[in-house]
Amino acid sequence: MFAPLQNDSFLRACLRQATDHTPIWLMRQAGRYLPEYCATRAKAGSFMGLATNTDFATEVTLQPLERYPLDAAILFSDILTVPDAMGLGLSFAQGEGPKFAKHVRDEAAVSDLAVPDMNKLRYVFDAVTSIRKALNGRVPLIGFSGSPWTLACYMVEGSGSDDYRQVKSLMYSRPDLMHRILAINADAVALYLNTQIEAGAQAVMIFDSWGGVLADGMFQQFSLAYTKRVLSQLKRSQDGTVIPRLVFTKGGGLWLPDMASLDCEVLGVDWTVNLSIARAQVGGSVGGPGKALQGNLDPNALFAPADAIAAEARRVLDAFGQPHTDANTTGPTQIFNLGHGISQYTPPDHVAVLVETVHQHSRKLRNA
Amino acid sequence: MFAPLQNDSFLRACLRQATDHTPIWLMRQAGRYLPEYCATRAKAGSFMGLATNTDFATEVTLQPLERYPLDAAILFSDILTVPDAMGLGLSFAQGEGPKFAKHVRDEAAVSDLAVPDMNKLRYVFDAVTSIRKALNGRVPLIGFSGSPWTLACYMVEGSGSDDYRQVKSLMYSRPDLMHRILAINADAVALYLNTQIEAGAQAVMIFDSWGGVLADGMFQQFSLAYTKRVLSQLKRSQDGTVIPRLVFTKGGGLWLPDMASLDCEVLGVDWTVNLSIARAQVGGSVGGPGKALQGNLDPNALFAPADAIAAEARRVLDAFGQPHTDANTTGPTQIFNLGHGISQYTPPDHVAVLVETVHQHSRKLRNA
Repeated sequence: MFAPLQNDSFLRACLRQATDHTPIWLMRQAGRYLPEYCATRAKAGSFMGLATNTDFATEVTLQPLERYPLDAAILFSDILTVPDAMGLGLSFAQGEGPKFAKHVRDEAAVSDLAVPDMNKLRYVFDAVTSIRKALNGRVPLIGFSGSPWTLACYMVEGSGSDDYRQVKSLMYSRPDLMHRILAINADAVALYLNTQIEAGAQAVMIFDSWGGVLADGMFQQFSLAYTKRVLSQLKRSQDGTVIPRLVFTKGGGLWLPDMASLDCEVLGVDWTVNLSIARAQVGGSVGGPGKALQGNLDPNALFAPADAIAAEARRVLDAFGQPHTDANTTGPTQIFNLGHGISQYTPPDHVAVLVETVHQHSRKLRNA
Repeated sequence: MFAPLQNDSFLRACLRQATDHTPIWLMRQAGRYLPEYCATRAKAGSFMGLATNTDFATEVTLQPLERYPLDAAILFSDILTVPDAMGLGLSFAQGEGPKFAKHVRDEAAVSDLAVPDMNKLRYVFDAVTSIRKALNGRVPLIGFSGSPWTLACYMVEGSGSDDYRQVKSLMYSRPDLMHRILAINADAVALYLNTQIEAGAQAVMIFDSWGGVLADGMFQQFSLAYTKRVLSQLKRSQDGTVIPRLVFTKGGGLWLPDMASLDCEVLGVDWTVNLSIARAQVGGSVGGPGKALQGNLDPNALFAPADAIAAEARRVLDAFGQPHTDANTTGPTQIFNLGHGISQYTPPDHVAVLVETVHQHSRKLRNA
């Protein structure tokens, strides 16, 4: 059904297999920093108009690949599609963040929640298949979802939040209701990701964007436990090919030792994490088990001049250190990324410097 | 000049000396959650009207002590007084955060910066002396300042920020300018805190509220190094009494091992930190060197019902574990606090539950 893969460096690195360079992709790589993205978005009329139209979603997903030799594509969509399909009514007002028409703060609202009919998310799966076809085997396609906790933050708050007062009030006051929301979210996310895999996603990533706002102890109970519940339900392979699973908790660096036991292949880390320490904690050894690590340049480094960007990119690669190079076994690997989504203000030519530096320097590291 | 201290539990815990209970105070304890604070603020007309008037600042500093048996008072002021005294023009628009009339983003603006004349901050030192007198020895008074990096964030951004794009752009593009700003800030903060100590502050705290937004490596160079520069210049004692120095980096849990070498007595940590791990990392042993730890309840836990608040408070105390109880030597100690400033929406009677639980349970822990 789909063309054979030409560049499998991302998938190999996910599985801790040796590659000749460190693969790179960027969170939110199809986004407002690209003028061609803004042009397509203008045609679509709105963010959701863009995300729900298969042709537009395909077009913008491929745009960054036309500019840069990135090693993976990621589905263009939003992390809040699942609660929208649950009937909460997602909208994006001009110049503002996401907003839900309903929020979930009491027993009655929780009782109304259920794993949504995947037909309501058909536009996502159609986009996955369309993008996979359009990629024509150039690079693998990553599918994704928000984590159960991150979705719950938006569902309870009704929008983004500075202090997470509503969701944490519910968590501390009615942990039973919070657990019910999270269990439904986990089952919905698992079904959502499995359907993306069936539609053509070659890896899936769980974005726990707000896990890092939780207190130690609460993170393990209210975020990590439900990420585990998602992972336990995910398909391990499709058409005979392994589907790597990536988990990224923004602000979760302190809990890497807890995440070592997750049944996933890759852990994403933000820029506060020292990659050398993270590798020692969860990266494993050659021939032994471990996680691939994904990250972790500060997106703001891309506002510096070219030579400073290159220096920062090398610093991130050097912090991880030499990836293993033994083709006969698995070992520590890195996937280069930012520690968060790329800023809309990033000059596009700065991204070219980053991608080239990562490819060049990571080849050099392997021959050092 | 000042009355003798009746409750020295906070100062003793700072110095890792045994106390019969775990002392507690709350960041932003004099604040909008208290109706009496709002009444005084209304009289003052504005936030800066409140902070710059000695009588008002004294009144609001003492308000939480009238309600709760807290073990320390903290000067009512703002972290941005120093850049204001540098001539940047601080203002607080109704319902918005702080704003500076000028920002510092280029060589010319940096060249204009200098350690300000402390006479411009006379209102702060007058407030310190007035509060110390009004406390009449009930509990010790903590003075404070923003850290050099945190002040620089506001000076470059001109206001609060979601992404720290301006300050990080400057840091990555012109590290030389950033270092010049930070050196001036460090010397200004040191002078500011020393003058607070001379005016009557019995401990001083450096709030590195935005240290946690930096990448690993950058934090050490652009925040920690300048906190060190402040600490190296601080007075160690006043009138024969040791002045403990506290450093709190919000979001800095990953860097506790780096902070172990700071020349200060106390490290504050936010709620993402596991106090048991932090104690093992920096708390030291009985008779050996180490840091006292301050923290770390999530302020949002105060929205829960009384029994849940009490349970969370006990959980935080239990995470630290039994403080040492040997009156003849120093050892691991905790100062109870929130992991961030108290929310303006907190019900005041919930704070009473917290303070009582901490006092009761920490006494029980010592006799376990």
